[in-house]
Amino acid sequence: MLIADRPKPIAHSSQFNMKPSLVQGTRDFGPEIVRKRSLIFNTIRTVFELYGFQPLETPAMENLETLMGKYGEEGDKLIFKILNNGLERPEKHAAAKEAFEEILSGKNAKSITERALKYDLTIPFARYVAMNHAQLTYPFKRYQLQPVWRADKPQRGRYREFYQCDADVVGSNSLLNEIEFALIYAEVFTRLKLDGFRLHINNRKVLKGIMEVSGLVGNEKTILVTIDKADKIGMQEVHQLLLLTLDKDKVSTLMNAYLQQGSKTEKIHSLKQLLKQSVTGSEGINEMDFILTQLQSINPDVAETVELDLTLARGLDYYTGTIFEVKAPPSVKIGSIGGGGRYDNLTGLFGVPDIPGVGISFGVDRIYDVMEEMQLFPESVNTGSQALFFNLGEDMLFVLKTMQQLRTAGIRCELYHEAAKFDKQFKYAERKKIPFAIIMGAKEVSTHTALVKDLRTGKQESVSLNNLGNCLFI
Amino acid sequence: MLIADRPKPIAHSSQFNMKPSLVQGTRDFGPEIVRKRSLIFNTIRTVFELYGFQPLETPAMENLETLMGKYGEEGDKLIFKILNNGLERPEKHAAAKEAFEEILSGKNAKSITERALKYDLTIPFARYVAMNHAQLTYPFKRYQLQPVWRADKPQRGRYREFYQCDADVVGSNSLLNEIEFALIYAEVFTRLKLDGFRLHINNRKVLKGIMEVSGLVGNEKTILVTIDKADKIGMQEVHQLLLLTLDKDKVSTLMNAYLQQGSKTEKIHSLKQLLKQSVTGSEGINEMDFILTQLQSINPDVAETVELDLTLARGLDYYTGTIFEVKAPPSVKIGSIGGGGRYDNLTGLFGVPDIPGVGISFGVDRIYDVMEEMQLFPESVNTGSQALFFNLGEDMLFVLKTMQQLRTAGIRCELYHEAAKFDKQFKYAERKKIPFAIIMGAKEVSTHTALVKDLRTGKQESVSLNNLGNCLFI
Repeated sequence: MLIADRPKPIAHSSQFNMKPSLVQGTRDFGPEIVRKRSLIFNTIRTVFELYGFQPLETPAMENLETLMGKYGEEGDKLIFKILNNGLERPEKHAAAKEAFEEILSGKNAKSITERALKYDLTIPFARYVAMNHAQLTYPFKRYQLQPVWRADKPQRGRYREFYQCDADVVGSNSLLNEIEFALIYAEVFTRLKLDGFRLHINNRKVLKGIMEVSGLVGNEKTILVTIDKADKIGMQEVHQLLLLTLDKDKVSTLMNAYLQQGSKTEKIHSLKQLLKQSVTGSEGINEMDFILTQLQSINPDVAETVELDLTLARGLDYYTGTIFEVKAPPSVKIGSIGGGGRYDNLTGLFGVPDIPGVGISFGVDRIYDVMEEMQLFPESVNTGSQALFFNLGEDMLFVLKTMQQLRTAGIRCELYHEAAKFDKQFKYAERKKIPFAIIMGAKEVSTHTALVKDLRTGKQESVSLNNLGNCLFI
Repeated sequence: MLIADRPKPIAHSSQFNMKPSLVQGTRDFGPEIVRKRSLIFNTIRTVFELYGFQPLETPAMENLETLMGKYGEEGDKLIFKILNNGLERPEKHAAAKEAFEEILSGKNAKSITERALKYDLTIPFARYVAMNHAQLTYPFKRYQLQPVWRADKPQRGRYREFYQCDADVVGSNSLLNEIEFALIYAEVFTRLKLDGFRLHINNRKVLKGIMEVSGLVGNEKTILVTIDKADKIGMQEVHQLLLLTLDKDKVSTLMNAYLQQGSKTEKIHSLKQLLKQSVTGSEGINEMDFILTQLQSINPDVAETVELDLTLARGLDYYTGTIFEVKAPPSVKIGSIGGGGRYDNLTGLFGVPDIPGVGISFGVDRIYDVMEEMQLFPESVNTGSQALFFNLGEDMLFVLKTMQQLRTAGIRCELYHEAAKFDKQFKYAERKKIPFAIIMGAKEVSTHTALVKDLRTGKQESVSLNNLGNCLFI
């Protein structure tokens, strides 16, 4: 073992010798967390691919004008803007000084910032579709799994840098897409063993129909905001609140729709009756009927996880048809872990009108939290190296060759870097959760064997080298 | 679009109807490119894991003070700085106005920017190690594959957002690490079928030793910068250039070292003689000897790809021992596709001194370009869905059930979204490079068969549903 030269600092000045910290609201992901997150990401990716979705990645930075004005006034404030370069020392450079003076006078915000970090995946996706409109094959089915940034006040479970995971189909009005999104949700959460999740479905047209038949068109906002509280305060209380500002008879018709009892089939039957007079409402309830009936036929287990939930609203302005929301198992108090719906004309924002779309998203950070709380990550997710070869300080060549053969067979292994005491080498294996320690001394080398210790059980055995690989699977 | 209380895109306002564009120097990665890049990324990841490296991810944003001063004055200028939030309308808000006035007066740059996008993976890694020093298990072996951002002038092959891919071992002086990095490089490029790559190895101590024995200590910078041009102008011309400023005898000793002929073994033998008088030089040449000898014994094929290259310098200040550089096959004129070396005291920048390290990096964007040029991406990398089921407009339930079974067996498939003309459905499959088109009409359903057309060959056959999955592998 040769010893390296004396340490030499990279930067010589001691002014950088500071205690470092993370940007507030951001996180490092160490090995264990990356592995667990990858398990979630890979599961979602695999399922998206099984349904014909293709990957897309867009840059972290977008032109500021691509993002501004798309998320409301509050959203605009939460977009991270990037300082134009060359403005660092305005006291020294006339051009930089001028840029700042311009913005101070309210004249030209562009003079100091023209770029920003993306705030969600939807607008960059719309921008991509608009830019590549003529080249794309429709329906265009893409998924995207990337970080986004928001200058929100950091708090528990809310980060300034977090991942979004979206799949969308644009250029298709077919309800087949809605059916497949329900199947995708079920498949992903089943693979992640998240038993007890529920997929809530509603339809914006049904909500519109209910407003029409109740004579409450124009009061949607008040009503939906109030009904959104039903989870917490109950429908009884919602009823009382609505009566404070709205006509008694109208509210009564409304509550009649919302308080449908019985199975999904029965509810749909009653709603069809109730919405007969509304063209939009009938269209909506027929769509829901079709989706639920098809799901029941394709896979009754999936249909079982679906709930027809009229209280689901999800953003008044955005969606135009089916809306989805996935609730975490009730044992964990986390709420929504996914959602989406049908929208129209997203790319109209960028000059390409009339492309309908439907999409869903997975709340990957929350899914992670749910899986931690329910202890759903398999023990094996923590396993990096399967085996640590002990360094005995002798010629390690034979060991290195053995390791090369194992690696060719796909076995992850490492040699302890120096001839330390066994205690120290065992401790390294334990701390890295490496399940097998392997010792190959002169005796083992001469007999073509290895001493294999399973650190989880303490069991130790001598294994022929021909058979070593088979012993190390976990 | 998951979290209900966060703003959502507003799709109706026409004021935003503009032609969108990308930020200069950034790229969208469409499906085909993501798939090809993933092939490279997954290969590198798999090999890192085989050697016991663990994944790490750090945020895109770092505190500005973590980055500033680490990359030289030029580097500082190329760091993308993020505008503090709440400064958008200084003409309206007193606090924002004050912040701008402060920076204009040269008083407090922090008042407008405190965060920045990461410029490389090395400094954030050092920051992570320093912050988590007490909790980490040493040697700490991590890999990291993430984007970085630089405000460089965009040009062909140079982007403002690009990926870096690094692996480092910190806390170990063992040359085992260098040996394994050479094996890792060879394994990755062999798996990617990049025949003809060359791994150049040098050692900073050898360079130092050569300066010592030539009596040229103090002239390293001039010499190494001149020698760096040998690739283009030849050693003869280098010799002439050096003679312009340096003593003839000293340059003669120097050239004697650089112009060693013969095999690697012969070169090492001569260099050992030449560097006898230099402690550092002898140490360096012994290290190289050890690494090359071990590689030869472990895997002669790998040793064959290694070149002892004294002209390799790679950043004067940074490295202290072994240095690596991987050259693309000579048939493509792209040059370096990877590099690295041994350094000391990286975390000293953040108050945790004396942790030695060694690391390598893969130039993933360039590797992509090389593989495109050499046409190394397999045809199958473009395959998303393996099969497109045609939509016949009849009850598609049986088809949907069949597709569910195929997906359970891991086969990626999709149903055309509407009952369009066959021409249109064929065209969709072709444009998406889906290899199989499947038709299941009433006749097929009743006989439990499917009509499978291989779109690559035009061959068509009737297949029993029990056997359908086996026909669709590619």
